[in-house]
Order: sequence, then structure tokens, then C-alpha cells
Amino acid sequence: MADKVFVVGVGMTAFGRSPDRSLRSLGREATLNALRDAGVGPRDVGVLVCGTARSGMLQGRESGVGQLVGWELGINQIPVYNVKNYCASGSTSFDVARLAVASGEHDVALAIGLEKLTARAGKGATLTSDGMEIEGDLGFSPPAYFGMLARRHMEQYGTTREQMAMVTVKNRRFSAHNPYTQYKDQVTVDEVLAAKPIAEPLTLLDCCPTTDGAAAAVLVSERVLDRLRVRARAVKVEASVLRTGIYEQLKDMTTFELDVRSSRLAYENAGIGPEDVDVAEVHDAFTIAEITHYEDLGLCAKGEGGQFVESGASDLGGKVAVSTSGGLLTRGHPLGATGLAQVHEIVMQLRGEAGERQVDGAKVGLTHVAGGFMENDIATSAVALLSR
Amino acid sequence: MADKVFVVGVGMTAFGRSPDRSLRSLGREATLNALRDAGVGPRDVGVLVCGTARSGMLQGRESGVGQLVGWELGINQIPVYNVKNYCASGSTSFDVARLAVASGEHDVALAIGLEKLTARAGKGATLTSDGMEIEGDLGFSPPAYFGMLARRHMEQYGTTREQMAMVTVKNRRFSAHNPYTQYKDQVTVDEVLAAKPIAEPLTLLDCCPTTDGAAAAVLVSERVLDRLRVRARAVKVEASVLRTGIYEQLKDMTTFELDVRSSRLAYENAGIGPEDVDVAEVHDAFTIAEITHYEDLGLCAKGEGGQFVESGASDLGGKVAVSTSGGLLTRGHPLGATGLAQVHEIVMQLRGEAGERQVDGAKVGLTHVAGGFMENDIATSAVALLSR
Repeated sequence: MADKVFVVGVGMTAFGRSPDRSLRSLGREATLNALRDAGVGPRDVGVLVCGTARSGMLQGRESGVGQLVGWELGINQIPVYNVKNYCASGSTSFDVARLAVASGEHDVALAIGLEKLTARAGKGATLTSDGMEIEGDLGFSPPAYFGMLARRHMEQYGTTREQMAMVTVKNRRFSAHNPYTQYKDQVTVDEVLAAKPIAEPLTLLDCCPTTDGAAAAVLVSERVLDRLRVRARAVKVEASVLRTGIYEQLKDMTTFELDVRSSRLAYENAGIGPEDVDVAEVHDAFTIAEITHYEDLGLCAKGEGGQFVESGASDLGGKVAVSTSGGLLTRGHPLGATGLAQVHEIVMQLRGEAGERQVDGAKVGLTHVAGGFMENDIATSAVALLSR
Repeated sequence: MADKVFVVGVGMTAFGRSPDRSLRSLGREATLNALRDAGVGPRDVGVLVCGTARSGMLQGRESGVGQLVGWELGINQIPVYNVKNYCASGSTSFDVARLAVASGEHDVALAIGLEKLTARAGKGATLTSDGMEIEGDLGFSPPAYFGMLARRHMEQYGTTREQMAMVTVKNRRFSAHNPYTQYKDQVTVDEVLAAKPIAEPLTLLDCCPTTDGAAAAVLVSERVLDRLRVRARAVKVEASVLRTGIYEQLKDMTTFELDVRSSRLAYENAGIGPEDVDVAEVHDAFTIAEITHYEDLGLCAKGEGGQFVESGASDLGGKVAVSTSGGLLTRGHPLGATGLAQVHEIVMQLRGEAGERQVDGAKVGLTHVAGGFMENDIATSAVALLSR
């Protein structure tokens, strides 16, 4: 039987444009912050997992980013696993670190995720999933996909452009209180609608920006909670489900069937229902994405996502506060870092350390990433449930 | 406590130059062979781990190679972890798959490794480790490093050029009987010495070639050995140790201290000594490397590696048969595939299925990869011990 796993420290860099910083500098800062937060030293770390999606194609470092960050901090002579999984690279890092502890083989695991996406500046080509370059060149980039999805959702369920814009308005409000986010200025629904069109009906303010950053988490086994003196602030990993695609032609473009299945499995594994979730970080790369994620993750009924945000159900004081960090839309989305930035926010919330954006009495949190497109499906869905 | 793990199926492609084949085609063939060898179906697989070192920089597929191969075979809706670790990417795939089973979370794991290195043809630049491009441009490529190491070993221990050449002669002899290798023609010591110089004293025949290929293994938990009817041919994983660098200036260029430590740890974890090893696959990317690996892995005393090969101790009927597959020198070295091709050979040997190259009564086998250079050290050392 797998051992219980706890998150006892989280750290990240301020996300934004950092063209002058190296991968190792970003990784070092996030990792040091996580180690300090845990009160754990570099020599306590028994295994390191590092997730990046594009460090090979962008920085010529396809293999050794984990080693590099470890080298900076005197973390060596341990297993280092470098993992890749599109936008879910950070979630994959978290899940492999969890597995390393759950196996009973390691007591302290470090999960790191980072990306330097501004290195793409001036490269011209559309950013698409690996293997989708032809589709990207033909105009079928992620914004175009979600633009089509938005149209379909509006047609099918009566979702409005204003409801989508409300996602950005809400997430910017959270962002103002989070020191780690890229865009903190407040916007109105009208401003979102009037922004530069990207893929109609989506405008620039419906899309996440280009971002550099790193995030990290320290995971430990139950048996070292007392020895490391971390029990008081430990957050339990109730479930972590990572699943690859179904690869069938989607019957309904507005539903990511894979997210439906992975979240149901996470709820089942944890013995926790969607109604128990107090706070959630979802893959809101686009406003319409946050709306469909409400539905796919079971936070509201199918088709009611637009109404969900409009009613305030996903805001502070609502049914479940979503994207309290500011989400991908305002924090930014440095691919490999995102999954661990989500863990960062949920851990802060469950420990009651989220300040102005704190969800009162938050006991259960959810993280969700949908990573990469492949063969008419998403390539990876990652859902974790944490509790305290 | 971690669960016991068994290898119950192995498969690979014939290694060589396959410029017209895709990553997915190579991966599919190796995986199908492994599944057939195990008698396990695609739907039995609970987790897939895929190792490649350069698929992003060479094929623009940094993230999703595991998903691609799975898609070909109807393997989906399970966790897919894509891993990267220089030349040890295949060993990392094996180790993460092992961890997934050891955790008790999965009963059947598929480890895949592949690489299409011929895609580098015509690209000009020297192949070096990620982050070593400047050193490579200045002439400090892996052959140059091992050329210097060879000179030092000759100076320090009286190792001869002829002894190095004997490694190639031996490994070519094995290669003739292995259907999966790239170079099968026999060579003499004189021919090795007279071949085109690469980095003196090493010639072309002291160096591994440029190769495409894939290899895979099926790993299972003890509790499904009977249900899947695989007990009769199962090989036990006694230890799998993967360690990243020490990152200190090497005191002695002829010793990879990290390999010394990781192999000692593997022996300790398994309760098996180097004297118990019947057959070993080592990282013989260069002839002198095989010689120093004998020493670092404890198969002979420091400095006696040259004498070890000359005496026949590493040949059939010797103390421990090394590189019975033909090794990297003749099978070829498609980075991500190598670690799993080693597992393939050891499993064949321990099951008594290695034909003309069979080591009589082989009970214990070792695999070893030294992956990547970084900060005056190797970036990863991976040693596994298998038994039957």
C-alpha cells in the first residue's frame, strides 16, 4: 500500500518577463523559497524532480535542468528525474515526487517546475503543442481552438461574452493581492470586451500572457513529519491523478472528457466530492477554459459555467473560490512552472496564509492542468486534491 | 516498504540508421515486442514511462513521445511520464517505472526508451552534453575527453592501446550473434589501431557509432506474477540506483567517483557483491570507458582494467562477461534507448535465451549507464542489478 504524502513547503518566483535571468537562477530562487518555507535543508532532500516543457527547444537544455538547479544549491548525489509533459510538466514533477515518497523509498522529495518562455520572443512561429506545428501554421493554435469552443458554448448553453470577461475581472481582483503575479491592474468587463481581438470572440484579456517563472514544493512522508518539525504546517495529498488522452474524436467540443474522468477518479481516490472543495486552481489559460473547467471538474452542472461565474459562485464567499492566485490569466503561464504554482496557492490557502484573498476556513483544495493537444484530445489531464 | 518489482518482458528494434522511420514507428515496434515477450496486452499497462534525450531538439517533440507511442498501441487514459536524463534517459525511464510499481500504485508498468540520432546528420556541430556547447566548439567533446582519459590511464597504469582495441574485438565477436546490433563485421586489434583517428589515441573503432533505435521493458509487481502467467520467465529487480553528480573537480580523471558510489550502493541494497555478477552491460561508448567501468564497478581492482580484458576475464567463460550484447560500441548508442537495451540483454541472459552469446548459468546481471557531462562530473550514474 502506498505511503501517505504531505506538502510541507512551497516557493516560487514572481512570475513575469525575466529575459535576463537564467533557468538556474529562476529555479534556485523558487527552490530556496520552498526549502525555507519548509524549514528543510538542501541535504535533507532525497530525490529531485524537475519539470520543464520547452527548455530543450528554447534553451538547449533538454536533459539537465534538474541537475543545474540542484548544483546551485548543493543538492547532489541523489536521484534527479527531469520530466516533460506539455503544460502539465509541473504537475508531472509533483506527481513523480509524490510517487517517490509514496513508494517508501524517499522521505523528502523536491518537485520543481520552471520555464523561460520569453526566449520565444522574436521567433515568430505560433506556440502550439509539440507535433501540432502544421495545425499552428494553418491557424489552429490554442487561442483559435478556444475561440471555437467559446462560440460553441455560447450557442449551446447561452453563455455570454460578458460572463467570460467576468473571469478575467475576478482573477485580476485576486491578482492585486498576490505578490507573485504578472498583471495586477484592474479591468472591467467592458475593457475585456474592447481589448485587441485574438481569436474571436476572445480578446487579449481573455488569454494568458507570455511568462517566465519557477515554482517548487517539498513533499515528505508521514514518518518524518515530527523529526523535521513540519507537522504543524503540513498539507496532505489526498489524491493526485495524471492521465493521458483518450484520443477519440471529441463528441462535444465544450467538454474535455479526460478532465471529467481524471477529476472523478481523484474524488473517488480521496473520498472527497466536488461539493467539499473550498478552493480550486484550474487551467484558465483562456476565460472560456475556466468556465468549462468548472463544469468538467464537477463544480457546477454542464452548461452552467457562465452563470456560475456571474453569480459569484467562484468568487470569495461563493460555493468554491476559483483561481484565487489570479490564475494563469493574470499570474502568467510559464508552462513547466504552472502546476507547482497552483500547489503553492492551494497550500497557502489551506494554511490560512493567503491574506486578502484568503478563503475562510478552507479545508480542501484542488489543482487542475490540461496539458497539450494531441490527436483531437488533450495529451494530459492532472488533478490533485489537498487537504488540511 | 517498497514492493518487489520484476521484469517480465523486453523488446527492442534492430539498432542502426533508420532515417526514414519516425519516433512513433520505432517506439511501437520495441513496445510491441516487449508486450509480446511478456504475453501482456496494451490494456494491462497501468503506467507508461518514456525516455528520450534529444527528441525536442532533433524532432520538435520535447514533451509527448510517450503519448505518441501509446497512441499507436491503444495505450491511453493512464499516467504517461516523459523523462530526460542525457544518455541515462532510458535508465531513468526504467527507474521511474520501477518506482511506480514499487509504490504499490501500479501493477504493470511499461518503460520505453528511444532516440533518432541520425536526424543530426548534416547539422555539423559536435554532439555534446546539454550546456557543454562552448566546450564542444572548443574541441572538448566526449571523444576528446575519453582520449585524454585514455592517455592518463596508459601513463598511470601501463594500459596499452592493444588492450583498448581488445574491447572492440570482443564486443564485435558478441555482436555477430545478436540480431539487434548495428555493426557485426569482425575486426582485429591491428584494424582497430589502424582505423581513422578520432581523438588520439582513440580511433573510429574505439568509439560508438551514430544510431537510431528503441527498446522497452514490462515491469510488474509480485502480486500479478501468477494472474498474468509471467512468473516462469520473470527477472527480479534486486536494485536500481540512479544518482546525479558530485560536481567537484575530479581528483583522478581515470575514475568516475559517482559510478563507484552508485554501484556500491546498488550492491549494498541488493545484498549482492561484484563477485556475484555473472554478466554486465556497461556504458562502453569508448573502449577505454569499458576498461575504467570494470574498475569503477568493482569488477576488477583500480588500474587493472586493461589486463582484465586482455586476460579474457570479461569474455565468455571469464570472471564476468561484459557487453555480451555487443555493447554501445557495436550495437550503437541511441541515447534514450541504451539503458533499456541493456536491460533487454541482461533479461535474455538471465532467462538463458542469449544463444551463441549465452553466459552459462547466469544468475545475476548488472546494467550501467553514465549519462552526460556537467560541471567537471558526470550528470547521472545509473546502476541496476537483476537476478533469477
